[in-house]
Amino acid sequence: MNPDNITIRWEGDARTGRARLLDQTRLPVEEVWIEVASLDAMADAIRRLAVRGAPALGVAGAYGLVLGLQGELQRSPAGFLDAVRAAAARLAAARPTAVNLPAALERSVLRAEREAGKSPAAVLAALLEEARALEAAEHAACEEMGAHGAALLADGMAVITHCNAGALATVGIGTGLAPIYVAARQGKRLRIFSDETRPLLQGARLTAWELARAGLDVTVMIDGAAGHLLQRGGIGAVLVGADRIARNGDVANKIGTYPLAVLARRHGVPFYVIAPLTTFDPRCASGAAIPIEERPASEVTHPLGATAAPPGVGAFNPAFDVTPAELVTAIVTERGVIHHPDEARVRAFLGG
Amino acid sequence: MNPDNITIRWEGDARTGRARLLDQTRLPVEEVWIEVASLDAMADAIRRLAVRGAPALGVAGAYGLVLGLQGELQRSPAGFLDAVRAAAARLAAARPTAVNLPAALERSVLRAEREAGKSPAAVLAALLEEARALEAAEHAACEEMGAHGAALLADGMAVITHCNAGALATVGIGTGLAPIYVAARQGKRLRIFSDETRPLLQGARLTAWELARAGLDVTVMIDGAAGHLLQRGGIGAVLVGADRIARNGDVANKIGTYPLAVLARRHGVPFYVIAPLTTFDPRCASGAAIPIEERPASEVTHPLGATAAPPGVGAFNPAFDVTPAELVTAIVTERGVIHHPDEARVRAFLGG
Repeated sequence: MNPDNITIRWEGDARTGRARLLDQTRLPVEEVWIEVASLDAMADAIRRLAVRGAPALGVAGAYGLVLGLQGELQRSPAGFLDAVRAAAARLAAARPTAVNLPAALERSVLRAEREAGKSPAAVLAALLEEARALEAAEHAACEEMGAHGAALLADGMAVITHCNAGALATVGIGTGLAPIYVAARQGKRLRIFSDETRPLLQGARLTAWELARAGLDVTVMIDGAAGHLLQRGGIGAVLVGADRIARNGDVANKIGTYPLAVLARRHGVPFYVIAPLTTFDPRCASGAAIPIEERPASEVTHPLGATAAPPGVGAFNPAFDVTPAELVTAIVTERGVIHHPDEARVRAFLGG
Repeated sequence: MNPDNITIRWEGDARTGRARLLDQTRLPVEEVWIEVASLDAMADAIRRLAVRGAPALGVAGAYGLVLGLQGELQRSPAGFLDAVRAAAARLAAARPTAVNLPAALERSVLRAEREAGKSPAAVLAALLEEARALEAAEHAACEEMGAHGAALLADGMAVITHCNAGALATVGIGTGLAPIYVAARQGKRLRIFSDETRPLLQGARLTAWELARAGLDVTVMIDGAAGHLLQRGGIGAVLVGADRIARNGDVANKIGTYPLAVLARRHGVPFYVIAPLTTFDPRCASGAAIPIEERPASEVTHPLGATAAPPGVGAFNPAFDVTPAELVTAIVTERGVIHHPDEARVRAFLGG
């Protein structure tokens, strides 16, 4: 059974509707859907990673913007547009690395600007339409990425993935995991090794949960074991998602991705990044321009609430790293595959 | 303050003495010394990692052998020698990868064979003498490794270490951490980044504990963050211990060491292995001959007892990996430094 938007859903109309989302902080122990009724609640859900994953963050941001404007309908058209811009800025600040969040909010602001002069209620309805359209487009993009990526996977292959680039990171069947779901539909038997992905264990908690739920063969391992596994041989591909891709093909993704790419290169294993076009950031010339979020030390020193480090000892906790394009075998998008990405190939592909 | 055998101590004579050890499974939350009064209790302490670290395992095995023979003194000299051999075999099976454990037991058995014909009580006394001599030699070796290694560290340097190769892994000031303690005594200020080292978090629980206790500047990070840290620059060296070193210089050490070595090479950072001569195994031609312990999946799926993975999902949990000699800048021993180790240089160094 392939997952179908198990992440975030909108219920109701623009004026009174609510977002519902699966609280990913409680997986795999329990499945709890929460109602999100305000911009602040959505920003909080984003910050505490109840909803995460670059494509899902874009959709969450677009719906969060609608929530943030439901109480502003008494404003003038110009005042409402100001409120749209202010709300978008607040939401965009919730997390810095994934470009999908600010990019989705920017598209919504542009839509509001195009509707300028209409009543606030009409603009609000347009913003919901924009959010729904983004959700539909991201959902479809997952299927297309899956189709393009599945062609790279052979029956019987063992693959490694990192963090969660699955249904739980998107509103469809995922990015990094989409080729796995589509290949499984095609009857290919795959064995998936999922890095647990410290500090927040998205690989163990989320990827293992959704792949096991879909009946697929998943094994968890610590992040440090991927080297030994690649040394032993028998791994056919590494599949990961992305939080932001620079113009030169450098890829920001969950911390630990870069070491995996270095190891894959050493062992001659293809390293595939699967990401929708919304994850490309034309404003970043290279990975050096991508902001890397640093999160609280307690995520490292107190895993799942337990005590791992002595009191008073600090932790370095970057949430992302950058994999240089030269280590990326191909970037798989909904529009096709960029082999051996570099600035010229990314530009040509994006039609720049 | 430098640590001084905070791992395992013998109290009393050969016939009635006991081993005491700091239960490392309870660090950093509490410091609990336990009394170990039988071979089975020592084997259990070894298996559950109450005592761990290659040099400490050798000493623990030698004392465990004495404990296992205290009840055999009514045997004939020949029967006692049989009991020595059987007890050594049982203890050696407790953990497979670190060579120090079987090597120490083999030395004790050889000592017993040299004393053959003497009374069991006299042989038992000789076995305690052998264990005490090993403890003293390993203690001194730590100081010598520290002196040789400290020469490689400059004032102001930032270094990365993995797992615990410190006082808690030895009966002195450590292997991988010995150069840090000696450099600190010399007035060099170092900044130490300690990989937390999943699954059992020895880097966060043990290395951070002992370095902070000694007043040194230690920061914990997840294993996957070392790549990003090396990319940022400013790291002067990587320092690790070893569980077994093959004739060609291949190094078995805690899982995650190999990825760190690959990353250090990529970023031009020296990768130093610090280990006493007791960690070299002349019977292993290369790393391929070193047995790699696989430990229970629950160490991965239930970190510190919490639930990280969904029920029914398995984990791949190798406890060690092998770093090929070509990635090792130098092996630091108590007798000096083997630069760019390979079979010929290791043979020449060991005087083979």
